[in-house]
Amino acid sequence: MPRYNRVDQRIIDELRAIVGEGGVVTDHEKMEVYAHDETSEAHYFRMPEVVMKPSDARQVSEILKLANREMVPVTPRGSGTGLSAGCVPMYGGIVMSMERMNRVLEIDTQNLFMVVEPAVTTGEVQRRAREVGLLYAGDPCSAESSQIGGNVAENAGGNKAIKYGTTSRYVHGLEVVLPDGEIMTVGGKCVKDVSGYDLVKLFVGSEGTLGVITKIWLKLLPLPKFSVSLLAPFSRMQDAIDVVPKIMTGSGVVPTSIEFMDSLSIQAAAEYLNASLPHGDAGAYIIIEIEANTQEQVEAEYEAVGKLLQDNGALEVYVADNIATSRRIWQARKCVAEALRLVSPVYCMEDITVPPSEIPGLIAEISEIAERYGVMIPCFGHAGDGNIHATLLKKDMADEAWERCKEQVLAEVYDATYRRGGNLSGEHGIGAKRLDHFEQFYDPVALRVTRSIKATLDPNFILNPGKVVRPA
Amino acid sequence: MPRYNRVDQRIIDELRAIVGEGGVVTDHEKMEVYAHDETSEAHYFRMPEVVMKPSDARQVSEILKLANREMVPVTPRGSGTGLSAGCVPMYGGIVMSMERMNRVLEIDTQNLFMVVEPAVTTGEVQRRAREVGLLYAGDPCSAESSQIGGNVAENAGGNKAIKYGTTSRYVHGLEVVLPDGEIMTVGGKCVKDVSGYDLVKLFVGSEGTLGVITKIWLKLLPLPKFSVSLLAPFSRMQDAIDVVPKIMTGSGVVPTSIEFMDSLSIQAAAEYLNASLPHGDAGAYIIIEIEANTQEQVEAEYEAVGKLLQDNGALEVYVADNIATSRRIWQARKCVAEALRLVSPVYCMEDITVPPSEIPGLIAEISEIAERYGVMIPCFGHAGDGNIHATLLKKDMADEAWERCKEQVLAEVYDATYRRGGNLSGEHGIGAKRLDHFEQFYDPVALRVTRSIKATLDPNFILNPGKVVRPA
Repeated sequence: MPRYNRVDQRIIDELRAIVGEGGVVTDHEKMEVYAHDETSEAHYFRMPEVVMKPSDARQVSEILKLANREMVPVTPRGSGTGLSAGCVPMYGGIVMSMERMNRVLEIDTQNLFMVVEPAVTTGEVQRRAREVGLLYAGDPCSAESSQIGGNVAENAGGNKAIKYGTTSRYVHGLEVVLPDGEIMTVGGKCVKDVSGYDLVKLFVGSEGTLGVITKIWLKLLPLPKFSVSLLAPFSRMQDAIDVVPKIMTGSGVVPTSIEFMDSLSIQAAAEYLNASLPHGDAGAYIIIEIEANTQEQVEAEYEAVGKLLQDNGALEVYVADNIATSRRIWQARKCVAEALRLVSPVYCMEDITVPPSEIPGLIAEISEIAERYGVMIPCFGHAGDGNIHATLLKKDMADEAWERCKEQVLAEVYDATYRRGGNLSGEHGIGAKRLDHFEQFYDPVALRVTRSIKATLDPNFILNPGKVVRPA
Repeated sequence: MPRYNRVDQRIIDELRAIVGEGGVVTDHEKMEVYAHDETSEAHYFRMPEVVMKPSDARQVSEILKLANREMVPVTPRGSGTGLSAGCVPMYGGIVMSMERMNRVLEIDTQNLFMVVEPAVTTGEVQRRAREVGLLYAGDPCSAESSQIGGNVAENAGGNKAIKYGTTSRYVHGLEVVLPDGEIMTVGGKCVKDVSGYDLVKLFVGSEGTLGVITKIWLKLLPLPKFSVSLLAPFSRMQDAIDVVPKIMTGSGVVPTSIEFMDSLSIQAAAEYLNASLPHGDAGAYIIIEIEANTQEQVEAEYEAVGKLLQDNGALEVYVADNIATSRRIWQARKCVAEALRLVSPVYCMEDITVPPSEIPGLIAEISEIAERYGVMIPCFGHAGDGNIHATLLKKDMADEAWERCKEQVLAEVYDATYRRGGNLSGEHGIGAKRLDHFEQFYDPVALRVTRSIKATLDPNFILNPGKVVRPA
């Protein structure tokens, strides 16, 4: 890494001149909240030297120009709900919190677009769309607290990706401040656009290492009018996962969600909710949501899917066709991360992704690895997408043993994932957390391309260093 | 541009050693078919010095290494159905025809993926998917003749993009030979993957300027079981286009296609088909396709959409619910390009894209421009996507006058497009044809980023020079 300079008083004075008094935080206590995301490990708690809150792209630009001149790193930040330490200032310097840029700039019901600043919460985007009868289809579990800019930077996934794809699909335009401070606008309200390289998609998911996103053009969809949720417990994970491609090919239905939980996740959820869940001793849950425009259609679809589940080994199929029962089904799935945190405040939540048919085999391997190391690794996630949140729990293990155990377990889990045609991250990103493993497992030519793109756009390595990519 | 060398006998001998006797074409007559695409103008007819037909990625790699060493340009080529001269060897050198790499490597019905080499035709991909009850959703008008590698390189659109998006959405993995001959594999059968920058999407639509695609992982979908086509003539284009967002928001239905034709296109189609079309004097046609999984659903949806069309000024709504009647409706739309070629063998087909609500205003401006210059510019295309094929016809204009007129008309049309938030190309690409205008209209910072990405991956400017981007 390059040699960065410390942020001294002279630099702080200059920064204050850019954003005004209220836009600079230097108080240690007030900066603590900017020192971490939701990655639980102490290694990913790093104090910024100063926190900046720019109000517009011009201020972002001036901050980046100054940072280049002074060789000070800049780490952009949304609301810090990430799970790969992507917004943690690994080398100190400036944390650039986008919190002041939180306006919905336009809702265009003719062309089905919403134009927003990065700090609007994802939940707010969803609500504002719904108010005019439209759908913003991105739906990470953290929707209420995460910011849309963070969703774009990480290419957030979530529960609805099987039908609607990830955040990337809905981003048609971006205003981005490049590391050198130049302001670039690409795309906009065109539905189709192949004029030049797809720079929009290059910046989506680049984890704040190529530019700072200051404006986003989001495509909206018509809002489906009816929905139903299904919960199907299975004795064995293999049976539960085998049914997934059958739903798509056999019934022709593309559900909005196909989620799964393994037995450890089911038990943790039951304890957390202090409730007995149906078939609480099941080997796996499959949770499905179906949306359609008419009552008849949604009924036809859930009956077809329900029959398939029953014919393929479901112990039962629970149908929730109103908000209350549906919420109860989803509560079990949505509380898992929280529930596991209760079991073990220190944990390592993975985000591996494989071709969906590899889920049962991989989960069996993971449980074998867990047994061998004497640890618990509950698995849950997005069955339709092949995206598994295998979550290693520290529990009462000593710190040093945990670090060693974690390294070895991760190495084996990643190795199993790659052998099955998988990859490190389906939605959480590389960040700081997976940088070493990324360099180890990624195609070496692709790694070289990644480094050369980073180097050409950010030659001083000023922007979000320690994430995704190191200098060559 | 750099100084390229001529392909001499020594180089040809070396190339022959790489691909074998049958893989090299030097005969002038046999090379003529590789000298153009479907862009009609003489300027885009350029003879290759040699045509190479590699059989695998390794041969592609060796050719590119040799080309770098000898400073000879390489132009990759599918089946030459492009409309922006993207595969025309503007600087001579090697045309690399992918025709031998035409195998379907795998159809995975568990994970809904097809793995193909680049020279498989798009029609073949569609058929092979359909045979196993699946859908490949990419559908350019040239599907029968175009190759999937070309579709990927250009990020082809087509008639179904409003519902299914463009080619890009279905490409989850690529094997690419980089300009320096290194072979890179990114992505694969994972449905979700955010491990590193989205290099797959960077190479999709890069028009063969960043690498040569040698293997493609395509996502498939369940095949919808029922479909209906609607034809609605309108007196005025404004009314026809106004109905488009109403369909999406009012009925909640997302049709598979929403196409349009203006009065000149309708008349040309009628003449070409030598048939009287319904309401042949209409100001505009809207053609809609709706797909669903049940008869009931497709009926409910076309009735909702039909009513909306009628309530919003359609002169009539023709419903085609079987293959024969549906084909008749689509024939009118699909023959337009051919029909216009009959009216004028030399023409300039544009591919502008705007926010859909801007279509009527832009078409009014275009017709005003046409009148002012005394030329015909029929417009047709993808109403749901805002993608307009405004097609300037030469007819009996003298060559010199045509060149001058074309330049001036295009400048005005592009200017109107940009004023309305639009862009140069929705699906045909920049290629050689739009390079000057791209540099003129594109965001200057984005242009700089484009140039720096090209320069870092292809420092010798060996690969497909004269397309998309010039050296800085």
